Amino acid sequence: MNLDDQLLKFEVPEIIYGLGALSKIGHCAKRLGGEKLLLVTDPGIIASGWIDETLKYLRQEDLNFFIYDNVVTNPRDFQVEMGAKLYLQKGCDVIVAVGGGSPIDTAKGIAILVSNYGSLSEYEGCNKITQPIPPIVCVPTTAGTGADVTQFAVITNTRKRMKMTILSRAITPDISVVDPYLLKTKPADLIAATGMDALTHAFEAYVSSLSWSMTDPHAIHAVELIARHLTSAVRSKDISDLEGMSVACLEAGIAFSNAILGAVHALAHPLGGFYDTHHGVANAVLLPAVVKRNINHSVEKYARLARAMGCDTTGMTPDQAARSVLIMIDLMIDQLGLPKKLSDLGVSREDIPAMAELARADICMLTNPCTYEISEIIDIYQEVW
Amino acid sequence: MNLDDQLLKFEVPEIIYGLGALSKIGHCAKRLGGEKLLLVTDPGIIASGWIDETLKYLRQEDLNFFIYDNVVTNPRDFQVEMGAKLYLQKGCDVIVAVGGGSPIDTAKGIAILVSNYGSLSEYEGCNKITQPIPPIVCVPTTAGTGADVTQFAVITNTRKRMKMTILSRAITPDISVVDPYLLKTKPADLIAATGMDALTHAFEAYVSSLSWSMTDPHAIHAVELIARHLTSAVRSKDISDLEGMSVACLEAGIAFSNAILGAVHALAHPLGGFYDTHHGVANAVLLPAVVKRNINHSVEKYARLARAMGCDTTGMTPDQAARSVLIMIDLMIDQLGLPKKLSDLGVSREDIPAMAELARADICMLTNPCTYEISEIIDIYQEVW
Repeated sequence: MNLDDQLLKFEVPEIIYGLGALSKIGHCAKRLGGEKLLLVTDPGIIASGWIDETLKYLRQEDLNFFIYDNVVTNPRDFQVEMGAKLYLQKGCDVIVAVGGGSPIDTAKGIAILVSNYGSLSEYEGCNKITQPIPPIVCVPTTAGTGADVTQFAVITNTRKRMKMTILSRAITPDISVVDPYLLKTKPADLIAATGMDALTHAFEAYVSSLSWSMTDPHAIHAVELIARHLTSAVRSKDISDLEGMSVACLEAGIAFSNAILGAVHALAHPLGGFYDTHHGVANAVLLPAVVKRNINHSVEKYARLARAMGCDTTGMTPDQAARSVLIMIDLMIDQLGLPKKLSDLGVSREDIPAMAELARADICMLTNPCTYEISEIIDIYQEVW
Repeated sequence: MNLDDQLLKFEVPEIIYGLGALSKIGHCAKRLGGEKLLLVTDPGIIASGWIDETLKYLRQEDLNFFIYDNVVTNPRDFQVEMGAKLYLQKGCDVIVAVGGGSPIDTAKGIAILVSNYGSLSEYEGCNKITQPIPPIVCVPTTAGTGADVTQFAVITNTRKRMKMTILSRAITPDISVVDPYLLKTKPADLIAATGMDALTHAFEAYVSSLSWSMTDPHAIHAVELIARHLTSAVRSKDISDLEGMSVACLEAGIAFSNAILGAVHALAHPLGGFYDTHHGVANAVLLPAVVKRNINHSVEKYARLARAMGCDTTGMTPDQAARSVLIMIDLMIDQLGLPKKLSDLGVSREDIPAMAELARADICMLTNPCTYEISEIIDIYQEVW
């Protein structure tokens, strides 16, 4: 630990966990002072039946609610603005988000706008939020993003075709209600993609320049759980594997909310902004190429990650042990049947220089274990094209 | 994980950590809406100079404050009542506690009384607090109790000569400001005793019937850090060892606040109530005898604890591996020069039956991996007398 010149922080929302935890949602909203809730979700979640279930528990507590479901993957700034208008118009007091990263990030954006006003782009970057925001309760339905426990929100700036990262302690949700049973209705390909998102969170948090003694065990525990449960969760949706992935996602979220991320996320964000690529898939394609370049800057830590993924590194040199993590990642991506090339995702080679400029300026780049020149970022995009 | 019939929770205050973190105390109190603070501490901390330092940072933020230092080890109910009167009389809005477990538990007790009224004994037990309490910021000066991150407060009921355990999510502090530099002024024997308290927290949380996938890594990390840093922190007060113990104490606190404790604490509490025994010393005397009886109910977990303490269990049977933890504990107590017998602490044999009754009724007994008959509790006290 080198703590002489920096203070570190560790913040986690209250977590209610377990099969059937969804039934506590009304009680949680009420405990935070809720009487009129804005319920942020998306059409897929409504179709899955979980919103009907949620409404049952809200009614049991005599809560009023207004549903806002104009949310898509990589949520847009104008969708957040519309949600904020509804919140103000209806006089809501608590925001409940049920869904994956997109409804949760939309909820965070709404909370910012209804109390800090102006446009979301004013809050891009670190700690720009000055006024207290309404309480937020999250019910994550995808084990991956970790948005339910983090101080991050990523919203697409439609005018600039780029993803804005908003990072502020203020937007850490108040309560996360984690019910692994909700993953039962999640499509297998989405379990795979969001699982790789969680793995990337844990990897980047563990080697981040802001990682410390309180964040490291969360990152390692996340990697161990993902190695044990992800592929079989995708294949069988056995409840014990879904439980394992739910905890893995929480652990990875706690790690990266406090230690921040790295180059994989910096390079993945422009793909979302330009092509609407699923964030987990973008991370899976980029992770091996970034790890290959980072590895010499954090040999011991990558060796530890290899062991957490189940690799026996006994008798290996430190360098061999670290490099074995690349084999483990490759094996996992193969088992999950995820794409390995940007060209498979419809990315045009011509956009690479423009995406590289955005990636270099991305806030996540600041905590990568080494810095990248623009030419190196272009090389990475080319290599995985 | 057996989650079918229970929901689990995980709650941690915001933590600000690092050398020099004390300088953030005024900012933290202000962020929680503080204008007039009640500063709870004890005469020892004032003598150490840390309160002068604290006041400097409070003045920098133009905060008003009133100091309450009528606090002793094993804080008394009437001391809490007097503090609550001062808080109300002066119209305070935020409580800042600087000290070990005693000032922090006193601060929690004051927070309960000024908003829930009545007498502290009405809040003994689980979740009896119904009204919101004032914000609490803690600055722990002893790495041990973990009170700065837990939902526990232990206050002596002077009329009944017993310790009351108050357990409620409501009393988890809002912010814990952890500055390892503050341990520099702590006497070596207190580092040893509070270190054994932290070790006991981690042990009991890890084998608790409420332990789960989110609490276990915190318990194991705490034990690893204590095994690495405690004896050398006592000997040399090297800052890296004090940092290690600060994090260990946080980790153990997070583990037991969420997984609760066990029989060691149940048996230690009456010693505090009857003889004012230092809580860490009482735990150190009782830990081996309780582990010996618990061991068959959690063989794998005790073996894992042995490894976390640095024991190589390769080639051992599971039972041998588990039992090796007893050797590791004994070694540590020897190295720390702590007492091993209740008779060394002035405990009278005649009080054992009465203490055993209180221990059996203690809330911490509920999460021990096995239940004890009253005769077994008497046997344990006799064995370590």
